[in-house]
Formats: sequence, C-alpha cells, structure tokens
Amino acid sequence: MLEYSVEFPVRYYETDQMGIVHHSNYIRYFECARLKMMEDWGYPLQRCEKEGITIPVVSVECKYKHSAYLGDTLRAVAAIDEKEPMAKFVIHQSVYNQNGEVCAYGDVVLGFLNKETGRPTRCPDQILEVIRKEIENHK
Amino acid sequence: MLEYSVEFPVRYYETDQMGIVHHSNYIRYFECARLKMMEDWGYPLQRCEKEGITIPVVSVECKYKHSAYLGDTLRAVAAIDEKEPMAKFVIHQSVYNQNGEVCAYGDVVLGFLNKETGRPTRCPDQILEVIRKEIENHK
Amino acid sequence: MLEYSVEFPVRYYETDQMGIVHHSNYIRYFECARLKMMEDWGYPLQRCEKEGITIPVVSVECKYKHSAYLGDTLRAVAAIDEKEPMAKFVIHQSVYNQNGEVCAYGDVVLGFLNKETGRPTRCPDQILEVIRKEIENHK
Amino acid sequence: MLEYSVEFPVRYYETDQMGIVHHSNYIRYFECARLKMMEDWGYPLQRCEKEGITIPVVSVECKYKHSAYLGDTLRAVAAIDEKEPMAKFVIHQSVYNQNGEVCAYGDVVLGFLNKETGRPTRCPDQILEVIRKEIENHK
Repeated sequence: MLEYSVEFPVRYYETDQMGIVHHSNYIRYFECARLKMMEDWGYPLQRCEKEGITIPVVSVECKYKHSAYLGDTLRAVAAIDEKEPMAKFVIHQSVYNQNGEVCAYGDVVLGFLNKETGRPTRCPDQILEVIRKEIENHK
Repeated sequence: MLEYSVEFPVRYYETDQMGIVHHSNYIRYFECARLKMMEDWGYPLQRCEKEGITIPVVSVECKYKHSAYLGDTLRAVAAIDEKEPMAKFVIHQSVYNQNGEVCAYGDVVLGFLNKETGRPTRCPDQILEVIRKEIENHK
Repeated sequence: MLEYSVEFPVRYYETDQMGIVHHSNYIRYFECARLKMMEDWGYPLQRCEKEGITIPVVSVECKYKHSAYLGDTLRAVAAIDEKEPMAKFVIHQSVYNQNGEVCAYGDVVLGFLNKETGRPTRCPDQILEVIRKEIENHK
Repeated sequence: MLEYSVEFPVRYYETDQMGIVHHSNYIRYFECARLKMMEDWGYPLQRCEKEGITIPVVSVECKYKHSAYLGDTLRAVAAIDEKEPMAKFVIHQSVYNQNGEVCAYGDVVLGFLNKETGRPTRCPDQILEVIRKEIENHK
C-alpha cells in the first residue's frame, strides 16, 4: 500500500450546530489527501487537467467513527494498492485526529475522462507511469 | 416506500473548476432532503434536537451518474422503507435534475444519540410515532 | 430601485458551533440573489458566461444584524439603482428572515471582464440592454 | 501592528466554474487567520467559548485584487493595532499567494457577547490580558 497524507487544523466554519465537524467535510478532506498524493507524485492535478485528463469521482463512501472538533489537527490519508489502475482507480481514504483516532474512512472510486471526446477512458499513460515509479520506489 | 423531496437551483459557489457541481455537495443535498422529510412529518430536526435527540450520520455513500450544472434545478429525495427503524435508520437518497435524470444516489445511515448520556440509543418514541403515522397515511 | 429576491430554508451544514448560520454564508446568499436577478432579466449568468462575459466580484461588504437559525426561511435580495452601470456595477444586497427582520446587508461591487483579452471592460451591451428594459418596465 | 498568519494550499472544492477560488472563501480564510491569532496568543477560541465568551462577527469587507488558483499556497493574515480593543475589535485581514501578491484584503469587525445575558459586552479581561502581553512582547 502506498500512503499519502496531509495535515490541517479544523476550520471554524466546518463545525455545525452539533458542535462537531459537519459530516460532509470529510468528503472534502478526502479530496485534499488525493491532491497531496498527486503532488507527491510530482504530477499535480492542475497539470493533469491542463494535459486534458479529467478525473471524475465515480463514487464515495464514508463511515463515521469519531467526531472531530475545533482545536483538532486532522490528518487526511489517501492510500492506493501497489498495482496499476485500469478504468477505475480505488483510493482508500481516512481521516485521523491528533490522537491517532480514526474519525472517518471509506473508499473513493475515480474514473478517467478524455476531455476531447468527453468519454471514459483507461488510466492515461502519464498516471500509469508515476504510479509505476512510486511502486518501484516503495520496494 | 415513503418519499420526501425538495427542489432548489444549483448555486454558483457549488460549481468547481470542472464546470460542474462539486461532488461533495450531493452529500449536502441529501441532508436537505432529510430536513424536508422531518418537516413533512411535522417533527422538524430543530425541535427534535431541542427535545434532546441527536441524529448523527453513521455512514454515507454516493454514486455519481450525471453531472449537474449552473442553471439546473435539482430535486433531492429522501425515501424510507415502510417499517420502523431500530438502532439504525437507513435513508435512500437521490438527486435528480429538471429532466428527471438521476445525478447521484446512495444510502445514508443515521443513528440516534441520547444527548444526556452521549450514548447510542434505539430510535426514540417521538420518531417512531411519526413514522407509524406516515406509514398509516400512505396506505 | 429594482429589486429581485429568492427564498430558501437554512441548510443544516450552514450552521456553526455557535448554533447560528455561519457569517460567510451570507456572502453566498447574496450571490444566490444576484443569480435570480439575472434569471429574472431573462439573461441568466450561464448564458452570459457562454457569450464571453465574466463578471468578477470586485468587493463585498456585509453587516450582520440578526442571526439566522435552522428552521428559518430566508429571503436574499439584490437591488440595483435605476441607472445604467459603467465599469462598476453596485448591487445592494440583504438577507431577511421569515419575520421580515434583516439578518445582514451590504453592497457588492461587480466588474466586467472581456474573456478574450482578460481585461476589465465597460458594462457589455447585452447587460445594458436588459437593464434598460427593466427600468422601462418598472416605470 | 501585530501580525499573525497561517498557510495552506488551495482546496479543489474552493474553486468555481470561473477556474478560480470562489470569492466567498476569502471570508473563510480570514477566519482561519483569526483562529491562528488566538492560538498564537495561547488563548484559542475553543477555550474562549468554553469560558462563556462568544465573539460574533459584526461586519466584514473584502476587496479582491488577484485571483487564486488550484496549486497556489495561500497565506491568510490577521493584523491588529497595538492598542486595547473596546466593545469593537477591528482585525485587518489579507490573503497573499506564494508570490507575495495580495489576493484580497479588508477589515473584519468583531464584537463580544456575554453568553449568559446574550448581550454585547466590553472586551473581556481574558482577551485584554493576552493582547497587553502581545503588545509588550512586540516592543
């Protein structure tokens, strides 16, 4: 498993009237970790989109285990299996608080779109390449 | 199946740089439909919370089928089975555009918390009652 | 003064741990009213953007008078003076609750960008035209 | 002037269909800087709220100078004058990108609420104390 993560404090506007981080924000934290993953690859999403590859979200799931609060420092994780993605790309996601407790976790499935044709496509070569390199480096 | 829904236009800030409604917003639209459901029951969430019942989200899932765009009018749906919930309460959720196309759907599972003890509890009587009435009315 | 408005219930995720609608949301409600204004003109923003006109926000101000709560139905207003905008377009904005109390208000200033040159431009003819018609109809 | 700041990357969901960070997010970035300010004081907002002091936002203003994009690392700043606040507390706010360009700036005015009475109050002693200490340290 290859793991990428990013840390940040809870933002005030992310809390709701239950006094906890609103559940929808974890879906957004998951995305922050995916952005960091691509940045760590040396192939950030903004470059990827400029090269004509769009990576739509096919599905998300999120299981909530532990509330997060103002004052918490969260760590959002994106982990991938050490194998090449095909048409679908599964990202194992989670969010931990500063005590190492898992607040939420779940799989996010990505697809790949060819911007010109607007049609689903296999995982593009640029992404396959960086993933291969990551697997290699990790050995 | 008992169905509740609410309609609203896409908001500009909900779009992202792909030019579509950001995927995280559907989790929020799902919640809008659940609020409308409780309002239609005559037992709105704000009253429920005042009476000491907190309804945390246990899990969400969302499958994305069709992008939504600025200019679209969306209909968010919360549907429940015609039986009494126990400790968990499954809501079947979906979002449609003005052409009746399903943009996204998935199940959201709710729990019930006793505010005083802070512990999970069975579905409280107030909610059982309104659901029984809804099932009765629907026949 | 020409006035345009849109109504909607407070959404749960918009509340914060103070138990009120987070102050940043009013800036978003203001935008909802501006979208409605352009729709009422028969010249919705999505068409405007497709015709190559971008309308960036130059400045916002917002004064908070009364908190909004879950359960409230809000009315967001965009009002404009009965004269043709030049390079800047001032929108007088406000948000009321169901009791007619003003929750927040302030002016938002818009500019106009030529998408091709990327440079500020005078108010484009398409918009001048609809505003002239609105002023005429309002007499 | 006492200055406090916090850095973070642009998040994908913060962009809109213009391809830039949506203008409403700067109001939220401003808040992130204020949270950091109180943390740097050693008197974080969560402790402040627990001690019965609520700090509502009285007004915000924001002037937009330069768009922020996905890939940018932003720095949000909260600066205060070196004098004790009275009933109102003015925070000079700004957001810079990684090139030191100011993206947006404006003053945010805070008030103080006594949680028990629900009424506006003078700046509470706990906050006066930390500000005095900050001014002292800064000399």
